[in-house]
Amino acid sequence: MAGNTLGKLFTVTSFGESHGPALGCVIDGCPPGLALCEADMQRDLDRRKPGTSRFTTQRREADEVRILSGVFEGRTTGTAIGLLIENTDQRSKDYSNIADTFRPAHADYTYDQKYGFRDYRGGGRSSARETAMRVAAGAIAKKYLAERYGILVRGYLAQLGPIRAEKLDWDLVETNPFFCPDADRIGEMEAYMAALNKEGNSIGARINVVASGVPAGLGEPVFDRLDADIAHAMMGINAVKGVEIGAGFDCVEQKGSEHRDLLTPQGFVGNNAGGVLGGISSGQDITVSIALKPTSSIRLPGASIDTRGEAIEVVTHGRHDPCVGIRATPIAEAMLALVLMDHLLRHRGQNADVNCATPAIPGSAPGND
Amino acid sequence: MAGNTLGKLFTVTSFGESHGPALGCVIDGCPPGLALCEADMQRDLDRRKPGTSRFTTQRREADEVRILSGVFEGRTTGTAIGLLIENTDQRSKDYSNIADTFRPAHADYTYDQKYGFRDYRGGGRSSARETAMRVAAGAIAKKYLAERYGILVRGYLAQLGPIRAEKLDWDLVETNPFFCPDADRIGEMEAYMAALNKEGNSIGARINVVASGVPAGLGEPVFDRLDADIAHAMMGINAVKGVEIGAGFDCVEQKGSEHRDLLTPQGFVGNNAGGVLGGISSGQDITVSIALKPTSSIRLPGASIDTRGEAIEVVTHGRHDPCVGIRATPIAEAMLALVLMDHLLRHRGQNADVNCATPAIPGSAPGND
Amino acid sequence: MAGNTLGKLFTVTSFGESHGPALGCVIDGCPPGLALCEADMQRDLDRRKPGTSRFTTQRREADEVRILSGVFEGRTTGTAIGLLIENTDQRSKDYSNIADTFRPAHADYTYDQKYGFRDYRGGGRSSARETAMRVAAGAIAKKYLAERYGILVRGYLAQLGPIRAEKLDWDLVETNPFFCPDADRIGEMEAYMAALNKEGNSIGARINVVASGVPAGLGEPVFDRLDADIAHAMMGINAVKGVEIGAGFDCVEQKGSEHRDLLTPQGFVGNNAGGVLGGISSGQDITVSIALKPTSSIRLPGASIDTRGEAIEVVTHGRHDPCVGIRATPIAEAMLALVLMDHLLRHRGQNADVNCATPAIPGSAPGND
Amino acid sequence: MAGNTLGKLFTVTSFGESHGPALGCVIDGCPPGLALCEADMQRDLDRRKPGTSRFTTQRREADEVRILSGVFEGRTTGTAIGLLIENTDQRSKDYSNIADTFRPAHADYTYDQKYGFRDYRGGGRSSARETAMRVAAGAIAKKYLAERYGILVRGYLAQLGPIRAEKLDWDLVETNPFFCPDADRIGEMEAYMAALNKEGNSIGARINVVASGVPAGLGEPVFDRLDADIAHAMMGINAVKGVEIGAGFDCVEQKGSEHRDLLTPQGFVGNNAGGVLGGISSGQDITVSIALKPTSSIRLPGASIDTRGEAIEVVTHGRHDPCVGIRATPIAEAMLALVLMDHLLRHRGQNADVNCATPAIPGSAPGND
Repeated sequence: MAGNTLGKLFTVTSFGESHGPALGCVIDGCPPGLALCEADMQRDLDRRKPGTSRFTTQRREADEVRILSGVFEGRTTGTAIGLLIENTDQRSKDYSNIADTFRPAHADYTYDQKYGFRDYRGGGRSSARETAMRVAAGAIAKKYLAERYGILVRGYLAQLGPIRAEKLDWDLVETNPFFCPDADRIGEMEAYMAALNKEGNSIGARINVVASGVPAGLGEPVFDRLDADIAHAMMGINAVKGVEIGAGFDCVEQKGSEHRDLLTPQGFVGNNAGGVLGGISSGQDITVSIALKPTSSIRLPGASIDTRGEAIEVVTHGRHDPCVGIRATPIAEAMLALVLMDHLLRHRGQNADVNCATPAIPGSAPGND
Repeated sequence: MAGNTLGKLFTVTSFGESHGPALGCVIDGCPPGLALCEADMQRDLDRRKPGTSRFTTQRREADEVRILSGVFEGRTTGTAIGLLIENTDQRSKDYSNIADTFRPAHADYTYDQKYGFRDYRGGGRSSARETAMRVAAGAIAKKYLAERYGILVRGYLAQLGPIRAEKLDWDLVETNPFFCPDADRIGEMEAYMAALNKEGNSIGARINVVASGVPAGLGEPVFDRLDADIAHAMMGINAVKGVEIGAGFDCVEQKGSEHRDLLTPQGFVGNNAGGVLGGISSGQDITVSIALKPTSSIRLPGASIDTRGEAIEVVTHGRHDPCVGIRATPIAEAMLALVLMDHLLRHRGQNADVNCATPAIPGSAPGND
Repeated sequence: MAGNTLGKLFTVTSFGESHGPALGCVIDGCPPGLALCEADMQRDLDRRKPGTSRFTTQRREADEVRILSGVFEGRTTGTAIGLLIENTDQRSKDYSNIADTFRPAHADYTYDQKYGFRDYRGGGRSSARETAMRVAAGAIAKKYLAERYGILVRGYLAQLGPIRAEKLDWDLVETNPFFCPDADRIGEMEAYMAALNKEGNSIGARINVVASGVPAGLGEPVFDRLDADIAHAMMGINAVKGVEIGAGFDCVEQKGSEHRDLLTPQGFVGNNAGGVLGGISSGQDITVSIALKPTSSIRLPGASIDTRGEAIEVVTHGRHDPCVGIRATPIAEAMLALVLMDHLLRHRGQNADVNCATPAIPGSAPGND
Repeated sequence: MAGNTLGKLFTVTSFGESHGPALGCVIDGCPPGLALCEADMQRDLDRRKPGTSRFTTQRREADEVRILSGVFEGRTTGTAIGLLIENTDQRSKDYSNIADTFRPAHADYTYDQKYGFRDYRGGGRSSARETAMRVAAGAIAKKYLAERYGILVRGYLAQLGPIRAEKLDWDLVETNPFFCPDADRIGEMEAYMAALNKEGNSIGARINVVASGVPAGLGEPVFDRLDADIAHAMMGINAVKGVEIGAGFDCVEQKGSEHRDLLTPQGFVGNNAGGVLGGISSGQDITVSIALKPTSSIRLPGASIDTRGEAIEVVTHGRHDPCVGIRATPIAEAMLALVLMDHLLRHRGQNADVNCATPAIPGSAPGND
C-alpha cells in the first residue's frame, strides 16, 4: 500500500493539505456497536488545536470534525468511518513567497525531489496540520480500548528544552498549556517560552506516553512486534527524531543484573522493559518516550538556496509554534492508541481460542480472557 | 498480514525456531537479473555467526545458507527467493529445565500469555537465532543497492556499556570482534568483557548504522515515512529499546537555529536531520543509532516465578553472548538495507515518470534519474 | 487491512452509506503531475448516475464529486487524493419499514449476523450507491493509463436477460441507455424492459470489458496474478456472480489444439487467453466478462422472515433499477482500470531496470520500455 | 506486497520452481494449539500428486512435505510454519530445447517480457508444480476449520470436456482417478481420455467446490468480500479461466423472482446466492465452480515463434497431464479453505464482541457464537 494508511486490521487512511479545502480520513475495521459521536473526538482535537494559548501558533482553526459514515443511531456499524475537517483559516498569501525556496529543515526540497513539484502553501501535505486526523482517529481507538478493556492511554511533556519535569502529577497535565506534570516547572517554562518568542527562536521537547491496563499478549514477532509498530507510529509523527521503550537508551550502560525486571509472586519488580518482552505486551504499563526537534520555521534569518540552486536568506514570518512538542502530547497518545487497537484486533483474530493455563502476573493486565 | 513479513514490495517472510530443524525465509519482489550466489550472503552471515570469538556464545553453527529458488544460471529471476539454513548444534537438554520457568527479561511469559504455550528450547522463535535470516536477506538488498545505485550501508559499535568510540575509522571496524571503529578503545573493551565474563554478567551497547549514496525522494508520508519504517525495522531487532535518526534525543535541547541544517550552493551544512526531511530521504547520509539492552541470560541468580506462579531462583548455564550488541552490527545493517530496498521499489513504482526540474543539492545523492 | 481498500501501490479506500451524508474515497499512490479536475471524473459518474433514463432507478442524485486534496494548480501532487460526493436525495422514509425485515437476496441478514445490527436505510453500506466512488477513482486510473501508456479501457452490455448483442459497434455503446453495441437489439431491449417494469420484475445481465494497449508483463504470479486480481475486483462489484477471462467457461469443452493461441511472426492467432498467460499480461487485449444477477428489489411479493424469525411477505416499493447490469458498465471499466493501474506501478517498482532482449510480438503492446 | 503471499491474517507465502531443488512455503498466523503433523498434509498432497494414474503426467514425485518450524510437541505454536518439499524427479534435459522457444498458451513469452529472461526448465515458477504447496497449506486450514468449526470443504469434477456429471455421490469422488461423483460417467471418461491420449491432445474441465458449515458473517465489504477473495484465489490457480459463485452465469437469464432465495421460518428456499449475500457468508453452503483450460503442452505440432521472432513449430514430448482439471480438485479445495480461514480470523478480530440478537436462519450455520 501507499504510505497514507496505518494499521492492518484497524486502519486509518488519511488525506489533506495544510491549505486545501479539507482534511479527512477513513477508519476501517472499527468494531461495531461502539457509541460514537463528534464530541467524543472533539475533546482531543481541542487539546491539539492551534491558537489555544500564546505559546502556540495563532492560526485559528475550529477543527470541527464531521462523521460522514460508519455510525448509525449513535453506534458504529462496523463499516468504514469517514471523518472530515474543513480548513477555515488558510492565509495562502503568507506562503506564496516560499514557492521557489527550500526552507532549512523543512520538507520543501525532499517533496520536490520525490514528486517533481509540491503544494507549497503552508507546507502542503508535510504540514503538521494532518495530525488533526490522527488525533480524531486515535480518539475512537482510545474510547474502544477504555470501554471494552479498561485500557488508559495518557501522555505528558517530560522535557521542554533544558527544563525537565521531575514530578508526575497526572491531574496537573490537563490544567496547563504545556501538558506539564510538574507544578514546579510551569513557571520556568512560561518564562523560557517568552524569552524564546522574543528571540524569534524555537526549542525541542520530550514527550512521554503511557498505556495502562494493556492485556498481555499483544504484538506479532518477529517483524510486527508491538514495540516495532509503536516505534513506526511515533517516528512517523512530524518532527520526531527518537523513540524509546522502557529504559530506552539508558540500557546501553545497564548491566543484565540491573536491567532485567525480576518476577515475584507479588508481581514484576521494575519496568525497564516498558511493558514489552520479545515484542509482546507483558501486561505492565507500556512506556514510550519520544524526542521532537525544534520548530523549523523561526524568525531568525538562515542561509538556504532557491529552486535554481542559488544562495538566498530565509526568514519566516508565518504563524508557527515555537515548540511543536507542546501540542504533540495528544498526537502521541493517539498514535499509541491506534497501534494498540490494531494489535488487539489482530491478536483476537489469531488467538481467539487460546486459553492460557498460566495465571497472569499480579499487578499486570491478564492476557486472553 | 501476520507478523513475520517485512516490507511491501520487497518483502522478507521469515520462519524458524532456535532449536528446530531449520531457519528459512522467502524474499519476494527482488528485481530480476541480479547476480547472486550463496557466497554473497555468507560473508555477512559469518560476521553475525556465533562462536567466532571468545566474546560471543560458544554455540557452533555453520550458518550455511542454501538458495532454493528464484535464481537461475547465477542471476535472480524476479520470482520468490527461498533461503534455508539448517540448525546443526541444538543442545535442547540445556533448556529442558526452563520449560516451566519464566526467565526474567525473556519472552517466556509473554509467549505463554499470547499463544497458551511455547517452544521453550533455546527461546524458540524469540531467540536471536532468527536474525540469521535477516542478515541473509539483507545481503541481497545490500548487493542490489550497491551495484545498481552505489548505495553503501555500514555499521559499527558506537558504545559498549560505559566505553564510547570517539573516532570513526571504517577500515578498523571489520578487523576486531567488536566492530569497534576506534583503535584506542579495543583494549578497554577486551578488558571490560573479560571482567564481565568473570562476573557472570552482561552489558548493553549502542550501534550506529549509516547509508551513503541514498537518492533523494525515498519514503512515503504521512505514515510510511522512511524514518518511520527504519524505526520499525530497528525496534524489531531483538533487545533494541531505542532508535534515533540524525541528532536523535539531542534535539530535545537544541534550538531551531542550532538544529536546522542550512543549505548553501555548496551543499547542506551539517546533518542533524540524519538524511531524512519530512519522512523523505534528502540525499545526505542516513544516520541511525540504536540501543541494545544487556543479554538477559546471565550466570547471576535472579528471582522469578514458575508457571504456577510460585517463587523460584533462575540461574542461566546455557551458552550466551555477554553483550548481544556485539553481533548486532550486521543485523542493523541488514534491516536498514531492507527498508531502503523496499522504499526504492515503491518510489520507482509511483514516481517512475517524475522528472524533477530542481537540481540535486551538491554533495547529496540525486533523486529520480 | 480491513476490507474497504483496493490495491497495493495505487490504492482506493472507500466509505459511505446509501443514505448517509456523503460518500467518499482516498486514492493513494497516484503518480504526480497528472492533469486532473472534477470534470475528468464527472463524465464517468454521469454514465453511472441514477435517474438518467426510464430504465434506471428514479432516485435523483447530482453525484457531483469534489477533489479535497492531492491536486495543486491542476495537477496531482503524488499525495493522497480525497474525493467527496454529498448525498442529496435520501428518502429514508421509504426504508423505515424494512428495519426489522430480511429482504430476500439482499445483505440484510448477513450484515446483521456479521455486525449485530445494520444501517437499514437504503441498504446502508451494501447499497450499490458506493460504486459511485469506484467510478470516480477509476476515472483517474483511466486517464493516467490513457495519457501515459495509451491504454484504453471500454465496456458494453453483452446480454440483457435472453437478448444477446451479436455485433460490437463501439461507437454505438454511448448512444443508448443500455450501453448496447448492437443496433439491432436496442428496440428489443426497450420492449423487454417495458414489459419487465409492467410485471414488476427484474432481470440479469452480462457485461464485457476490454483493455487495449496494455503492456506485456503486468501481473505477479503466483497469487497476485493479473487475472486473479481482475477476478477479485469484478466479483467485488455488487450483484456479480461470475467472472470470465478470455474464453472463460467455453474452455471446459475446448481441446488444447483449439484453445491455444498460436504465435506467428505476424502476431498471435486468436485470443482465448484473454490477454493473460501465466497470470501476466501478454500485450493482447485483456477481455473480461461478468454476470450480474437480477435486482433483488422487485414489486412482486416474496416470502421472507423478520428479525424474530417469523414469516412475513416482502414487497418493494422503493426506487430501483429493474436491471442493475445496465449501469454496471462504467463500474466494470473502473475496476479493470484500477487493477491495471496498481499492477503497472507494482511492475515498474520491481522491474524498472529490466530490458527484455526479446522483441514484442507484432500487434501486441510491448513490455518494459 | 509482492505476489507470492495470499491472505491478510492467515497468510501463505510460497516459493519454488518446477526443476529447482525444492518447493516451500511459510504459513503465518495459524492459531496455536492445533494438532499437526506431516501426515495431516500428506493425504491431500497424495490426492494431487503426479503419476498416480495413467491419466496424469508420469513424472514421479514423492511430494513428501517436511515441517521445519511452528510446531512443537505435535501442536502449532502460533509462530510461522515453514514447509518444504524437495524435488526429486527433475529431467531438465526434457526442456533444454525450449530455452529459446515460446510455447503457445504457456507463460514463456510473458515471463520473458516481465523479467527479461526466465527459468525455462519445466516452466520454472509458472509450472503447476507450485500448487503442491497450496495443497499442503490448505490442509492445515481445512483441519482447523473442521476441528474448531465443523466446516467441511469438498470438491469434485463436474465436467470433463463434453462429459457432465449428472449425479453427486460424495462417497464416489475419492474412489476414482477423476474425482468424478457420478458412477455412470466414469467409463465414458476413461474412454474419452484414452482417445485423447492417442490423439496427443488435451481437454478442459469444470471443478465444483462446496464449503458446508461456514458461519454467517465472513467477508469484508466493499472490496474484500468473501466472494471476491474466493474469485481471486480460484482465478489464481493455473489454467483457470472462469469462476462462478452460486448460480453464476445462469443468473444472466434469471428474473429477480427466480433468482432470489426466499426465506421461511424453516430456512432458505434454494441457494442461487451460493452462500454469499452482499459479500458476506449467509451460513448456507458456499458453492463455487471453476473452468480449467486444456493442458497447453500437447503432442500435436503447433505454430509458434522463437526468441528472435522467427517462425518455428512446437511439439511437446515432455510428461504432461492431458487434463489439468483432473488434479485440480484438491487444489481448489485448498484455495477455498485458505480464503475461509483468513476471513474467519479477520472476522474474529473485528467482531469478537458482537452478539447478534437475530437468531440464525434454520439449516444455516450461525454467526458469532
